[in-house]
Amino acid sequence: MIETYGVETYLDKIKDRDDYFRLKVAFENTKNSKIELLEHSVAGVLLIPQKEELLEREIYIGYHVTRDNFVLIGDDEDLLKMSQVLEQIKEANETNTMNMLFWLMEYIIKDDFEYLQDFEARLNDLEEMLLERESKNFDKDVLTIRKELLRLQFYYQQLIDIADTLVENHNLIINDVQTRLFDLYSRRVDRLFDTVNRLKEYTIQLRELYQSQIDLRQNEIMKVLTVVTSLIMPLTLITGWYGMNFRNMPELENQHGYFTIIVLSLVIIVIEILIFKFKNWFK
Amino acid sequence: MIETYGVETYLDKIKDRDDYFRLKVAFENTKNSKIELLEHSVAGVLLIPQKEELLEREIYIGYHVTRDNFVLIGDDEDLLKMSQVLEQIKEANETNTMNMLFWLMEYIIKDDFEYLQDFEARLNDLEEMLLERESKNFDKDVLTIRKELLRLQFYYQQLIDIADTLVENHNLIINDVQTRLFDLYSRRVDRLFDTVNRLKEYTIQLRELYQSQIDLRQNEIMKVLTVVTSLIMPLTLITGWYGMNFRNMPELENQHGYFTIIVLSLVIIVIEILIFKFKNWFK
Amino acid sequence: MIETYGVETYLDKIKDRDDYFRLKVAFENTKNSKIELLEHSVAGVLLIPQKEELLEREIYIGYHVTRDNFVLIGDDEDLLKMSQVLEQIKEANETNTMNMLFWLMEYIIKDDFEYLQDFEARLNDLEEMLLERESKNFDKDVLTIRKELLRLQFYYQQLIDIADTLVENHNLIINDVQTRLFDLYSRRVDRLFDTVNRLKEYTIQLRELYQSQIDLRQNEIMKVLTVVTSLIMPLTLITGWYGMNFRNMPELENQHGYFTIIVLSLVIIVIEILIFKFKNWFK
Amino acid sequence: MIETYGVETYLDKIKDRDDYFRLKVAFENTKNSKIELLEHSVAGVLLIPQKEELLEREIYIGYHVTRDNFVLIGDDEDLLKMSQVLEQIKEANETNTMNMLFWLMEYIIKDDFEYLQDFEARLNDLEEMLLERESKNFDKDVLTIRKELLRLQFYYQQLIDIADTLVENHNLIINDVQTRLFDLYSRRVDRLFDTVNRLKEYTIQLRELYQSQIDLRQNEIMKVLTVVTSLIMPLTLITGWYGMNFRNMPELENQHGYFTIIVLSLVIIVIEILIFKFKNWFK
Amino acid sequence: MIETYGVETYLDKIKDRDDYFRLKVAFENTKNSKIELLEHSVAGVLLIPQKEELLEREIYIGYHVTRDNFVLIGDDEDLLKMSQVLEQIKEANETNTMNMLFWLMEYIIKDDFEYLQDFEARLNDLEEMLLERESKNFDKDVLTIRKELLRLQFYYQQLIDIADTLVENHNLIINDVQTRLFDLYSRRVDRLFDTVNRLKEYTIQLRELYQSQIDLRQNEIMKVLTVVTSLIMPLTLITGWYGMNFRNMPELENQHGYFTIIVLSLVIIVIEILIFKFKNWFK
Ligand SMILES: [Mg+2]
Ligand SMILES: [Mg+2]
Ligand SMILES: [Mg+2]
Ligand SMILES: [Mg+2]
Ligand SMILES: [Mg+2]
Ligand SMILES: [Mg+2]
Ligand SMILES: [Mg+2]
Ligand SMILES: [Mg+2]
Ligand SMILES: [Mg+2]
Ligand SMILES: [Mg+2]
Ligand SMILES: [Mg+2]
Ligand SMILES: [Mg+2]
Ligand SMILES: [Mg+2]
Ligand SMILES: [Mg+2]
Ligand SMILES: [Mg+2]
Ligand SMILES: [Mg+2]
Ligand SMILES: [Mg+2]
Ligand SMILES: [Mg+2]
Ligand SMILES: [Mg+2]
Ligand SMILES: [Mg+2]
Ligand SMILES: [Mg+2]
Ligand SMILES: [Mg+2]
Ligand SMILES: [Mg+2]
Ligand SMILES: [Mg+2]
Ligand SMILES: [Mg+2]
Ligand SMILES: [Mg+2]
Ligand SMILES: [Mg+2]
Ligand SMILES: [Mg+2]
Ligand SMILES: [Mg+2]
Ligand SMILES: [Mg+2]
Ligand SMILES: [Mg+2]
Repeated sequence: MIETYGVETYLDKIKDRDDYFRLKVAFENTKNSKIELLEHSVAGVLLIPQKEELLEREIYIGYHVTRDNFVLIGDDEDLLKMSQVLEQIKEANETNTMNMLFWLMEYIIKDDFEYLQDFEARLNDLEEMLLERESKNFDKDVLTIRKELLRLQFYYQQLIDIADTLVENHNLIINDVQTRLFDLYSRRVDRLFDTVNRLKEYTIQLRELYQSQIDLRQNEIMKVLTVVTSLIMPLTLITGWYGMNFRNMPELENQHGYFTIIVLSLVIIVIEILIFKFKNWFK
Repeated sequence: MIETYGVETYLDKIKDRDDYFRLKVAFENTKNSKIELLEHSVAGVLLIPQKEELLEREIYIGYHVTRDNFVLIGDDEDLLKMSQVLEQIKEANETNTMNMLFWLMEYIIKDDFEYLQDFEARLNDLEEMLLERESKNFDKDVLTIRKELLRLQFYYQQLIDIADTLVENHNLIINDVQTRLFDLYSRRVDRLFDTVNRLKEYTIQLRELYQSQIDLRQNEIMKVLTVVTSLIMPLTLITGWYGMNFRNMPELENQHGYFTIIVLSLVIIVIEILIFKFKNWFK
Repeated sequence: MIETYGVETYLDKIKDRDDYFRLKVAFENTKNSKIELLEHSVAGVLLIPQKEELLEREIYIGYHVTRDNFVLIGDDEDLLKMSQVLEQIKEANETNTMNMLFWLMEYIIKDDFEYLQDFEARLNDLEEMLLERESKNFDKDVLTIRKELLRLQFYYQQLIDIADTLVENHNLIINDVQTRLFDLYSRRVDRLFDTVNRLKEYTIQLRELYQSQIDLRQNEIMKVLTVVTSLIMPLTLITGWYGMNFRNMPELENQHGYFTIIVLSLVIIVIEILIFKFKNWFK
Repeated sequence: MIETYGVETYLDKIKDRDDYFRLKVAFENTKNSKIELLEHSVAGVLLIPQKEELLEREIYIGYHVTRDNFVLIGDDEDLLKMSQVLEQIKEANETNTMNMLFWLMEYIIKDDFEYLQDFEARLNDLEEMLLERESKNFDKDVLTIRKELLRLQFYYQQLIDIADTLVENHNLIINDVQTRLFDLYSRRVDRLFDTVNRLKEYTIQLRELYQSQIDLRQNEIMKVLTVVTSLIMPLTLITGWYGMNFRNMPELENQHGYFTIIVLSLVIIVIEILIFKFKNWFK
Repeated sequence: MIETYGVETYLDKIKDRDDYFRLKVAFENTKNSKIELLEHSVAGVLLIPQKEELLEREIYIGYHVTRDNFVLIGDDEDLLKMSQVLEQIKEANETNTMNMLFWLMEYIIKDDFEYLQDFEARLNDLEEMLLERESKNFDKDVLTIRKELLRLQFYYQQLIDIADTLVENHNLIINDVQTRLFDLYSRRVDRLFDTVNRLKEYTIQLRELYQSQIDLRQNEIMKVLTVVTSLIMPLTLITGWYGMNFRNMPELENQHGYFTIIVLSLVIIVIEILIFKFKNWFK
């Protein structure tokens, strides 16, 4: 039988049970999904990050599964999001409560492979922008993506933990068929986990590409500075030289002096440009 | 029965026991939490970092648990911090000594998920400051946080080790129900450990953001230098040129010479600015 | 018996089976290779990256293996690529369906060691180009290679998962001889995985080489700037000095003034060059 | 019975045993601690780095433990260092030879937690020096520390291997009580290993701090260069401008020309300083 | 019985066996060492990197071990390198064929600890050169060493895999005594693997040292540029200033004008040098 309660209401309802204290711990103060094995029941929390606002919003669903009852605990808004799967369970006339938990856990990951595809697409866009050298908000964008991936990985890790806990204690809680289901569930979530890991490695590669683009950019800036300085400074020296006020500087009096200096300056410029070209500074 | 002693006093009290030497090793010279399995008892140390001054202050609590006695060892100040949990145990009429150890170990981690939330908040603040480019004390702040996370991770690792040691040797020391309790305890601390790990990954991401901000800052500084130099140097060359003292420089005598140079200088400036603009140097 | 179907056709054909829903999940929405253990059969997908266009094209082959039937599911184009191994199986009169799956899985990795050799060759070429300092498209090339290696590693990981899933559940699905075959298969793919890992470490080494080449290049550019500036600036100061218009500057009137300045300038240049040489700036 | 021999002497003594060849391998050519399980005995080497000169000096202690004999092999100088523990064993009338090995292995790590505290203190000193920006020999100091930590971690790894080898083969070689002792020994050394790991992570953090200090320093140097250049270059252009020798430059003839230029220069300087201040260049 | 064949010859000889196809796969197309377990025999390849030319030359030794025959497969040149161990086996009258395989596998690693010592020496040399700031070919040298270490680690990984495969399947192929031998072999090679790992960590440390030396070098170059520019630019401004041609510049007419400027220039230089000294720019 499926029941739903608010946290307060349910704690109030069970306050005379022997394992009240442990159930209270199981439902309260949680920052991640978990399962606690009690004497004749399992209880815990699913803390499901919401895809549209991954870093801000999480759905809290407490669950308490006994042999005969499947209790979901949470505020109305969050429980509403699970109404679709609860309908399915009812329609299918599912009576085994551990199977209900399995349906629920399947439901919350069912679109995740598609969702991770979107991440890959976003990273591909970032890569293309990088290769086009349009890395305006790269730092911020990639940081957001990495925080989201970290959040997801943490989430999947907890789901794997829950499934593995059930499988490892299979004789006590779940039967052989269910053991196989939860084992496959664990493997499926592990594939999600691995996919996130692969995306994380990809972001590291993008960050390294970005880093060397910054460094290459610096080399280009320095090259401009060096080329400009190297081209102009020698000529400035020459002009300074013939701006000196010494009494007898024969060149200044010479009729072809000015023309010679013009030619000399052009020759210096050409030679320097050739040197830079030869040394491949203009790429 | 719960008893508390100072280290010296207790070592003196037990000095005639067969396992005196091993107990002495268990209580002394410790730099981390641990458990030692003795013939008919377990002994060890909980070394609990204090949240307010994580890197400076640790509480030392030695414990010696036999079938009938639960002995806590430490100086008065440290033992006082545990008085609350000792009260609880007495009130609950708990008689099993291994359960007492469990209560104690639960007590020391009970607020830790909230505590780790504070870390996340601190890191979020650091991130916002970074994105605002106010990274004044970033190096020092992030180093402190990383040292604290390292300290916590080390602490959780030892708690997991203690719980796992008990679980692995379950038939000898603890009964089946307790085995399940300590196993769940190990899993709970492992979630804390994973949370710290996630925070550590986050600090690495912040550090990389910081690093590329330093590099971007350098590029900006170099750009200013290069733009200033590139704008002014050619004009300086021109002024130097017409500061030369050659006898016959027709331009100097030309009536429109000065005006032509003014126009030429403006044209050069405009062209250079256009080039820099075209090459996106002003971002 | 070997049969082949399109996805739609096959789902239509089996729509009345008890395990229809689970089979549907097994064939649909997949982003990686996998296996699902059902009551009396195994089903799953092989998603095989195509070597010629590793990041763009994958072959989708669904499989459903019962005791008597070996069903391959996919579109015609993809199934065609498997026709060679299907021929072999028929020629060999293979009747065990799990053996057929083994043949198929062997077939898809049979040329992979040679293929990975090509990667090594490509990386060796990149290294040689780097050491020749021709790193034009290095960033892009190495990023492509790393993405391809990531893709392959992910692919091998899933194949290992499939083989290990079969081995771990051996009594239920496969016999002892097959267990050994799939165990060896898992080890063989693990060698492929390790080879990819080694190639990944190699790309990291190349990237670090590239990174320090960019940094060394920057040092060279800065050296040119510093040498040019340091050589010319002092002379420019001297020429500026004797370009001042003070009334009584005795040096200007001195008969040997100009000659002395020429000598002084040469001496300064020579000294500076010696200093730079001594300090090893010209390498 | 405890016996001590030189390597040559002992090999000569046992040269007629069946397992002579394997024993020879066990004692010779070793670069790390190890254990070899023989038919009725265990043999191996403890290679103990000496704390005062961690990277230069190691003590070599070969051991051969049979049911009745505990043989230590090494040169006199090295064996002397173990004399203290040998005394203890004799005084305690220890007769079990595997217990003797345990005593020996405990002895060589007994002061290691204190020793690792010293490392932490050294790293804290380095950190303080870094934060004071006195990083004179940082590179060399941190490299030495990291090599030492690497050496220690390698040493602890081998000790764990030895203890685990004994525990895993417990029925053959050691009894149940000893199994528990060596298991606890393995856990204790693992805590040392983890402590070294934590110190290694700390050195990585220090190195990253150092790296960003170098980069920040570079930004400061570049800022000085850019500020100096930006402040002076425009003025230099102005002075060059009015140093040109054109015939009719009205400003030069103007009575207030010189005064105007003085004012203009001051205005330019003030504006530039304001810009730099506004852009936070003086931090 | 020991037999040796060329690959072609042996494949021809066994072409009528049932397991011909699997044996062919075992001997052909191999890029790493491996073992394949067949019905009544084991077959595989040892691919041994040659120490003198680690990255270029590998010895190929195929092996096929049945109960009665120990067959080595390879070309004459490669088999010749194994002749020494074959002699030993014959002299020792070894009759068990799996023991022969063990002898062979021991033989190929017997000098490896000494060999790895040479690597450590080479890295120590590199470190000393770095600390002397003679890092001419560092990039190339360290890349070669890292590729060699990667090659070795890969090789040891495969040897461990072979030994572990035999140990894990011990009842089928090898007896209890041999199980222990191969287990110890696996541990010994694992120590080699760990040693290579430690050398790899050392190369990473050297690379980081190198990287910060390049950065420090850059800071030095920038300092020279900034000091030269900062010292000379202000003086150049002064000389430019008094090179202006304004009509009434009183300083120019003043009798002590020139002398005042000389003194002013000296004062500026001294002040700047003091500032740089105070700010520790000359280290
Ligand atoms: Mg992770
Ligand atoms: Mg996986
Ligand atoms: Mg997993
Ligand atoms: Mg995984
Ligand atoms: Mg990676
Ligand atoms: Mg990076
Ligand atoms: Mg850690
Ligand atoms: Mg975990
Ligand atoms: Mg963990
Ligand atoms: Mg755990
Ligand atoms: Mg990670
Ligand atoms: Mg980093
Ligand atoms: Mg990977
Ligand atoms: Mg492997
Ligand atoms: Mg594997
Ligand atoms: Mg590796
Ligand atoms: Mg890197
Ligand atoms: Mg390590
Ligand atoms: Mg351990
Ligand atoms: Mg460890
Ligand atoms: Mg540990
Ligand atoms: Mg870590
Ligand atoms: Mg680093
Ligand atoms: Mg191993
Ligand atoms: Mg190891
Ligand atoms: Mg290993
Ligand atoms: Mg490795
Ligand atoms: Mg490391
Ligand atoms: Mg690393
Ligand atoms: Mg690395
Ligand atoms: Mg590095």
